[in-house]
Amino acid sequence: MNVAQPSAPPLSPRLIARFRKIVGDKYALTDAADIAPYLTEERDLFHGRSPLVLRPRSTAEVSAICALASEHRIALVPQGGNTGLVGGQTPHNGEVIVSMRRMDAIREIDTASNTMACEAGVILQVAQRRAAEVDRLFPLSLGAEGSCTIGGNLSTNAGGTLGIITAATLKLFPKPRAIETAFVGLASPAQALKLLSLSQNEAAGTLTSFELAAEIAVDFSIRHGIDVRAPLDNRHPWYVLMEISSPRDDARATLEAILAKAMDDGIVDDAVIAANLSQRQAFWKLRDEMSAAQKPEGGSIKHDISVPVAAVPDFLEQADAAVRQLIPGSRPVPFGHLGDGNIHYNISQPIGADAADFLGRWHEVNAVVFDIVMRMGGSISAEHGIGVLKRDELLDVKDKTAIELMRAVKAMLDPLGIMNPGKVL
Amino acid sequence: MNVAQPSAPPLSPRLIARFRKIVGDKYALTDAADIAPYLTEERDLFHGRSPLVLRPRSTAEVSAICALASEHRIALVPQGGNTGLVGGQTPHNGEVIVSMRRMDAIREIDTASNTMACEAGVILQVAQRRAAEVDRLFPLSLGAEGSCTIGGNLSTNAGGTLGIITAATLKLFPKPRAIETAFVGLASPAQALKLLSLSQNEAAGTLTSFELAAEIAVDFSIRHGIDVRAPLDNRHPWYVLMEISSPRDDARATLEAILAKAMDDGIVDDAVIAANLSQRQAFWKLRDEMSAAQKPEGGSIKHDISVPVAAVPDFLEQADAAVRQLIPGSRPVPFGHLGDGNIHYNISQPIGADAADFLGRWHEVNAVVFDIVMRMGGSISAEHGIGVLKRDELLDVKDKTAIELMRAVKAMLDPLGIMNPGKVL
Repeated sequence: MNVAQPSAPPLSPRLIARFRKIVGDKYALTDAADIAPYLTEERDLFHGRSPLVLRPRSTAEVSAICALASEHRIALVPQGGNTGLVGGQTPHNGEVIVSMRRMDAIREIDTASNTMACEAGVILQVAQRRAAEVDRLFPLSLGAEGSCTIGGNLSTNAGGTLGIITAATLKLFPKPRAIETAFVGLASPAQALKLLSLSQNEAAGTLTSFELAAEIAVDFSIRHGIDVRAPLDNRHPWYVLMEISSPRDDARATLEAILAKAMDDGIVDDAVIAANLSQRQAFWKLRDEMSAAQKPEGGSIKHDISVPVAAVPDFLEQADAAVRQLIPGSRPVPFGHLGDGNIHYNISQPIGADAADFLGRWHEVNAVVFDIVMRMGGSISAEHGIGVLKRDELLDVKDKTAIELMRAVKAMLDPLGIMNPGKVL
Repeated sequence: MNVAQPSAPPLSPRLIARFRKIVGDKYALTDAADIAPYLTEERDLFHGRSPLVLRPRSTAEVSAICALASEHRIALVPQGGNTGLVGGQTPHNGEVIVSMRRMDAIREIDTASNTMACEAGVILQVAQRRAAEVDRLFPLSLGAEGSCTIGGNLSTNAGGTLGIITAATLKLFPKPRAIETAFVGLASPAQALKLLSLSQNEAAGTLTSFELAAEIAVDFSIRHGIDVRAPLDNRHPWYVLMEISSPRDDARATLEAILAKAMDDGIVDDAVIAANLSQRQAFWKLRDEMSAAQKPEGGSIKHDISVPVAAVPDFLEQADAAVRQLIPGSRPVPFGHLGDGNIHYNISQPIGADAADFLGRWHEVNAVVFDIVMRMGGSISAEHGIGVLKRDELLDVKDKTAIELMRAVKAMLDPLGIMNPGKVL
């Protein structure tokens, strides 16, 4: 994806030397081979370029970098685990990268206040584990948790940062004692919505996951994932992966009661509860592989949208129809977090079609899908952020006054326009 | 408290007529008697003045008011239930009051998305009740809930608003099935901290209240409150009012198990569990009366501070010593939400002292208390906001860059300085 702006002036060797002095020789990367991993991202949608990667270890070093950059109007792009999906962390125009990964100290865990003070470069999974060690839960969980960072998590909804996050204090929760997971087959998103409502009533605050997936998403994951198996004997048009995490030992009984009632009421057609931890992990692997499992099926046009929870069935029906009308044979592969109304509405190319041709229609497909999202009062970006991927669409769908205010805030905090320029706005 | 700034120019009759036209005759108040209730507040600390109270019924009317005010540089003070404790809602300099109470529609309740769209003037208790009617919980609860409004709740932490909130969509939670409440006597804040930790471990996410109060706070409430009785037979130096709200029917067993273990471990000296709803309400009345019950004891200097939860015992010890050294015979009456580290650190005057003399030392006492708060990494304002009451202290304790940025945001959104001028910044 070409998102280049007019080029930044090249960095003088003298200026590079001054940046180098701030972080130390070893942590100022200028060799192309060293810099390369910072320039691309997992989906291979974006390729950046940069003369310099700085790897500061302290807030003082970050501050010195910003001061020097400000003095010489050098644009900066902060980067955490480089797992973003919308190009927010990529230096599209030769900016200097400030990699935060060396700032990975957990400064303090306070179990009385239930807080954990993490530096920006702490890997999400490390934060989760350290919380668990003190019998607490840090509830944020996502596919990239093994490599994404806290600083990146916090700026995900604002790919164009207003500054650089160096550390944050996170709220912790009691660690659940019992976690029970079910894989459920059902007829439609409308039935899944009924199951969600029933589950929220019965499990109340202990319902912690409710993932909806179309049959094709499960099929792809089984076909292309390594060691992924079908949890149910028969096929179903839709599936739900649901989980109850309880502070007491009642999670199993609650889950069984929900599923029994749902079967009686004809909401659910089949269901299996994970018998042990490895089966639970297998259910989650099937879910976590869904995005990667689209790759062998050719080009995929992605959407990370949200609509009011009650509108999800209508959204899926209307979007499928609109997309199939636009590109006959295209294959919607929707999956996502029904409890949030957040659907990863991805579309795989028609079988045998040319991937480049299909991907060339990215914006055309976006327009059709976003139109339905906006009519339903939803959002074109749910959990992946705006970055550069959705920058242009944001202007189309967002209230003009809101955009003006965001621009004014950005201009006020970053008057030289050197903080991750060209992202979001 | 005198917080007057240079006076605003008087409003011309012609301009008043234009404002009146926007909301209709009946809803533009100009008679002194009609305006009076909007000028004072519960603590009788602040007295404002205003030529005009506007009571719009729609966002369009609010918008028209702002446009006209902007055209003529007329300063506005938005007001909800007028229950604020820091003077944020008071027109100190003859500003026009925009009372939001007529905008009291609940626009939508979506039980699938668990959201409720409320206009700004919806009374908090009405929002709670409407949520309960659809088997949901809106968990915000506070002393003024019978008269404070959603718009005011949202702006409480920012008494100097950047605009006017006309409506908000609130997140709802499952309604708990069982609520159990205990009143506990114990020796010290340190013991209360142990009980909190034990309770969080045993009750996990179902511990919903944990209020700490000094003996004197309970005494005042019993002495001066109407129909308030001591829940325990004997006196104790400190008390805790704790509550468990569970989605299941295990709240009673959980609470009993916590208290039994706390007794065994010598953490708790005595405890009683509310036998029924009226006893539960009596426990809460005792707590809710604590602030009002200070009035008959003479002048009270108030603080609404927070420190890290683990630091509360140290804070109370150091603050008591410092305040008693500054004003011998003064009586600290601390109570608050231990789980948040939020203490209403109020100080009643020495017995027989002159109330005006005592209140004259308000800022001197603040300085001593805030110094301890800041050393402990706390905040001088926890849940009451800044308003004008703590405006000057904010400048002393807050990072200079943070203040500059707040000022710049305010200037950007309110370039004419007509939105609740003189508050916070």
